[in-house]
Amino acid sequence: IQNIDYKKLTTLISEKALRYDLTVPFARYVVQHQNEIEFPFKRYQIQPVWRADRPQKGRFREFYQCDADVVGSNSLWQEVELIQLYDSVFSQLGLGGVTIKINNRKILSGIAEVIGASDKLIDFTVALDKLDKIGEEGVKKEMLDKGISEDALVKAQPLFHFTGTVNEKIEKLSHLLSDSLEGMKGVNELRFICNTVNELGLQTAFLDLDVTLARGLNYYTGAIFEVSAPKGIAMGSIGGGGRYDDLTGIFGLKNISGVGISFGLDRIALVMEEVDLFPETVGTTSKALFLNFGNKEALHAMKTIIKLRQTGIKVELYPDASKIDKQFKYADKKNIPFVIILGESEIEQHLFRLKNLATGEQIKVDFNTLIKLLH
Amino acid sequence: IQNIDYKKLTTLISEKALRYDLTVPFARYVVQHQNEIEFPFKRYQIQPVWRADRPQKGRFREFYQCDADVVGSNSLWQEVELIQLYDSVFSQLGLGGVTIKINNRKILSGIAEVIGASDKLIDFTVALDKLDKIGEEGVKKEMLDKGISEDALVKAQPLFHFTGTVNEKIEKLSHLLSDSLEGMKGVNELRFICNTVNELGLQTAFLDLDVTLARGLNYYTGAIFEVSAPKGIAMGSIGGGGRYDDLTGIFGLKNISGVGISFGLDRIALVMEEVDLFPETVGTTSKALFLNFGNKEALHAMKTIIKLRQTGIKVELYPDASKIDKQFKYADKKNIPFVIILGESEIEQHLFRLKNLATGEQIKVDFNTLIKLLH
Repeated sequence: IQNIDYKKLTTLISEKALRYDLTVPFARYVVQHQNEIEFPFKRYQIQPVWRADRPQKGRFREFYQCDADVVGSNSLWQEVELIQLYDSVFSQLGLGGVTIKINNRKILSGIAEVIGASDKLIDFTVALDKLDKIGEEGVKKEMLDKGISEDALVKAQPLFHFTGTVNEKIEKLSHLLSDSLEGMKGVNELRFICNTVNELGLQTAFLDLDVTLARGLNYYTGAIFEVSAPKGIAMGSIGGGGRYDDLTGIFGLKNISGVGISFGLDRIALVMEEVDLFPETVGTTSKALFLNFGNKEALHAMKTIIKLRQTGIKVELYPDASKIDKQFKYADKKNIPFVIILGESEIEQHLFRLKNLATGEQIKVDFNTLIKLLH
Repeated sequence: IQNIDYKKLTTLISEKALRYDLTVPFARYVVQHQNEIEFPFKRYQIQPVWRADRPQKGRFREFYQCDADVVGSNSLWQEVELIQLYDSVFSQLGLGGVTIKINNRKILSGIAEVIGASDKLIDFTVALDKLDKIGEEGVKKEMLDKGISEDALVKAQPLFHFTGTVNEKIEKLSHLLSDSLEGMKGVNELRFICNTVNELGLQTAFLDLDVTLARGLNYYTGAIFEVSAPKGIAMGSIGGGGRYDDLTGIFGLKNISGVGISFGLDRIALVMEEVDLFPETVGTTSKALFLNFGNKEALHAMKTIIKLRQTGIKVELYPDASKIDKQFKYADKKNIPFVIILGESEIEQHLFRLKNLATGEQIKVDFNTLIKLLH
């Protein structure tokens, strides 16, 4: 071990390091092109990224990151648009009934402030985020272990049974956070976003305020989003995002706010598979198989195939002059609906014998009729 | 170093190894599903793969592999179809004038046989492959260095100036290889493929026989393909492939022949960029920008935007109620052709003021007219 040249090793590893996310490269791009870009700048990007996580269902080491971000505007209309985008995409995919959960970093800061645990903000939110998994007692135990006082927990009590409509929750928060400037900012942001989304309506998604939502708190500065699969499907979040006020700071461009969402492509695919939303692949088979009677006939067949393909019709030639039975069996197994017979006599007559494999019916047609029947 | 547990290290590395190509996983798939698959089995696949090569123009460590393969048929019609596929794809991309070079492993074996260098087949072909780069003298020097006799070089002399049409080259080879059974098999395969392709015609590509083409000789057993960019564009091969007679052997399924081609996606993109074949991205901008006069008006705008987007029209809302000048400037810089003014009076009248930024012309229209004008 002591013989390894660590400097070389580091170069070697970093040179070959894999893309971890698309946000940092995007921030670099924005800084590099800041004078050519018109802000607000919107972009989407779909690319494979890697994480060294322990693989499990819905958690892969290589997965496709699908991001949509807007940088250079503080306007909450961006949050509204991104919620619309989630709704529109999931509706188009046929995945009705997803829940878009929303929270706000300023709400979490405000809560920590009013319960007197501002210095324990991270510990507080990390524990609260686990409410689903470990329950009220578990969360409280973890908070106490982290040094949050009994008194603070009493004040935080309403959060453990935080139910109602979005509007009711906002009014509860408004009451709870009335002494926190930061918290009230968060309440007002949430109120604008939720009221506007409500006014505009969603196609199939539900919007819910989830006061336990944290998602890597250090990252976000405003809205926090998470999308969960339609009820009854056991899959973690299938999307997430939020606002980060200093996206480009690490590359030297300060105070450029950004807000973005991500789609969990691989998980979405798993969910769609589970509810059987993918079309049957047999639909993509050839419309007709040209039988092969030898190279001379096959050449004529191929000339026709080229013309048919140019009009968008999927056809294929059986590659060998095998026994006819075998060729028919191939068409049958591949669910190809028609077989085309182009033997010596058909070639002479400039006709094609078209056999419907479902009905057994055969007709002799010219090229134009063939095109019509196969379209 | 001696303290490293090599077994653990190997697991660690292999567990995290990156995909090198798509052919081996494809072979594994075929073997695993051999009882469900109907042969000949065709598939295409597009995925990122990695090579630890030294990066340079057109040579990346991560690139997209685009493969099309057929397994389970020895028919030369597959080679014909794959050449058609190359022609069709490059024609559709607007890349007319690519050259599809073809050779055959059996030709190379035959040549080595008739010049008495069968035991030096690899050295011979590796050297011959460099004719373009190091010239006749360079190739001969390398062959002599590798122990190929002067006598063999004299017999191989015709290959160094192997010109003519494809048919002329085939006849020359037929003469040169008349004493080699293997070589004549290769000649006959090439003759069938080239004659058939010639009969069928190509849209924009050229087919050429290149007797120096080897492409990792150990891999291929029949046809060898390589595609070079249209003349005048300095880029290595933008595609390649060939027939491999025992694709699935390493996974225990013997004698399943396969033939496949690959598209060099990243290089093709570079070439298309060079000849300016990508459409201007400004074409993808919004058709109209809704000005933002404050949240009340913006809400009306957003309701309209949602409806317009549902009909496929790209429109956007300026996110802040900034000075109107600034909003117009944004539309201008982003080449958005129309601005839509939806102020208090327009909202009352259920009308939209549409301004054409090119002509300065303004008209007030209702929603249905708006849709028509923006489509």
